[in-house]
Amino acid sequence: MINKLNAKMKQMNAPVVVGLDPMLSYIPEHIMTKAINEFGETLEAAGEAIFEYYKGIVDAIYDIVPAVKPQVAMYEQFGIPGMIAYKKTIDYCKSKDLVIIGDVKRGDIGSTSEAYAIGHLGKVTIGSKTYAGFDEDFATVNPYLGTDGIKPFVDVCKKENKGIFVLVKTSNPSSGEFQDRLIDGRPLYEYVGEQVAKWGEDCMGDGYSYVGAVVGATYPEQGKILRKIMPKTLILVPGYGAQGGQGKDLVHYFNEDGLGAIVNSSRGIICAYKQDRYSSYGSLNYADAARQASIDMIEDINTARG
Amino acid sequence: MINKLNAKMKQMNAPVVVGLDPMLSYIPEHIMTKAINEFGETLEAAGEAIFEYYKGIVDAIYDIVPAVKPQVAMYEQFGIPGMIAYKKTIDYCKSKDLVIIGDVKRGDIGSTSEAYAIGHLGKVTIGSKTYAGFDEDFATVNPYLGTDGIKPFVDVCKKENKGIFVLVKTSNPSSGEFQDRLIDGRPLYEYVGEQVAKWGEDCMGDGYSYVGAVVGATYPEQGKILRKIMPKTLILVPGYGAQGGQGKDLVHYFNEDGLGAIVNSSRGIICAYKQDRYSSYGSLNYADAARQASIDMIEDINTARG
Repeated sequence: MINKLNAKMKQMNAPVVVGLDPMLSYIPEHIMTKAINEFGETLEAAGEAIFEYYKGIVDAIYDIVPAVKPQVAMYEQFGIPGMIAYKKTIDYCKSKDLVIIGDVKRGDIGSTSEAYAIGHLGKVTIGSKTYAGFDEDFATVNPYLGTDGIKPFVDVCKKENKGIFVLVKTSNPSSGEFQDRLIDGRPLYEYVGEQVAKWGEDCMGDGYSYVGAVVGATYPEQGKILRKIMPKTLILVPGYGAQGGQGKDLVHYFNEDGLGAIVNSSRGIICAYKQDRYSSYGSLNYADAARQASIDMIEDINTARG
Repeated sequence: MINKLNAKMKQMNAPVVVGLDPMLSYIPEHIMTKAINEFGETLEAAGEAIFEYYKGIVDAIYDIVPAVKPQVAMYEQFGIPGMIAYKKTIDYCKSKDLVIIGDVKRGDIGSTSEAYAIGHLGKVTIGSKTYAGFDEDFATVNPYLGTDGIKPFVDVCKKENKGIFVLVKTSNPSSGEFQDRLIDGRPLYEYVGEQVAKWGEDCMGDGYSYVGAVVGATYPEQGKILRKIMPKTLILVPGYGAQGGQGKDLVHYFNEDGLGAIVNSSRGIICAYKQDRYSSYGSLNYADAARQASIDMIEDINTARG
């Protein structure tokens, strides 16, 4: 899957992923009204509206964007109907050949991480049959519990040719509170980065490992250092756009082969129609606005990396 | 909810929680066969079997155990039908007045943590209506992203009188890989513990905060230190039983008021019927075995804390 993702990024000349982070306030009124007319003011209506909203965006971008990153938290807030919408969104994106990065940030002790890995990337056996629970292509994983919590994911990735992105240096303002703490003069995130490189060593695709890392666009200096610590690691870069990151900040997240990073934008794309820059599209044409915002983002990043 | 949990622990003289970690291999054959006969070898059958299995255990223990801790990962591995079983289990446990600790280990940047907090502890608004997605009483939370990732949970806890347990020192063998790294001579988990105490200051119940901590039974020396760093924090203690922790290791997790810790056992209780000690119950009476194992665990802990 790492090879497929790299090949798609190369072919489309677009090292980007569109984050699907559903908030009801993002959804154009005509979609929400239709869902409420059909299902009432229910969780089911929310799930249906979210799915329809993204179906429109996916139809508008799948030929220019290699991957999507649905944020499960935003679905989980709507309980079971939200999770059904999450699964429907994954399946629809797959039908358009998009690579799916499940932004689930799971991680636990070994036996529990194994269950998460099976649920999101692997298959579970019931009697003589096997089923994939959510079936994303990649999942984001939290490293706080150490190797025990990561290894079960790596094992499932090897078996299924899928991948993970381990949180190393996150994009949020307080990420430094623990991640930047100095240990023998070096911040914790560097040690985590070293482990990510090590975890990835024995599950390599063509040039890049199945084990990737998350490094926020909002910390370009740290990104430069982490690029060197993890030379064969694909870096998933959140924090572009709405969180403040710009193309010029991201030059050093890439390797000389032009690969090595995939930049995420969520609100900047899916809510483009609400920005002044794209307001002429109007809410009815929210998907066209998302397409134009994707084109502009790709150009910004490609201009910066030269 | 922290007051209710403390009151129940006091009244039952049982500072314990039973972890519900469904693996199909734990489920007695008669329950699995019945579910497969009804639903075939499907994810639905797995979900139904898990629910029936726990219904039996809950019926056998709710009068002697104050709380249960369903592990969402073990449900998530069965996809949507697994999540439906998770929600049904929560609702059933609530109908028996058990306190529900959702072992979800969520945590993300601010806006995303807010969605998790709403989904698991709070309510979401759709038009003029509000709904609770999963509606646990407590949730476990990962601290790697710092205050941004915790504060939205604290805000929802204040509003709903619910609580969280933040991972501080986890029970697994590799927990020291990052958590024990020394920063100015003190391990990272102590800094996390200090933050937990601080986060909890402005949402206090009677003596204990809504913000609790997770400290593994497998690290008693660290537990002793963390007890002092977080005097008003309820400590959720995993790792008792199957992971190796014993009652005598846990003395220092409690405060002088006899409160301050809640000890979890999962496999040791729910799979008691598979242990030599309780094998005379047989798989048909797995719930009675779970009750006896709960009684023995409570006695072990109460003997140790004197």
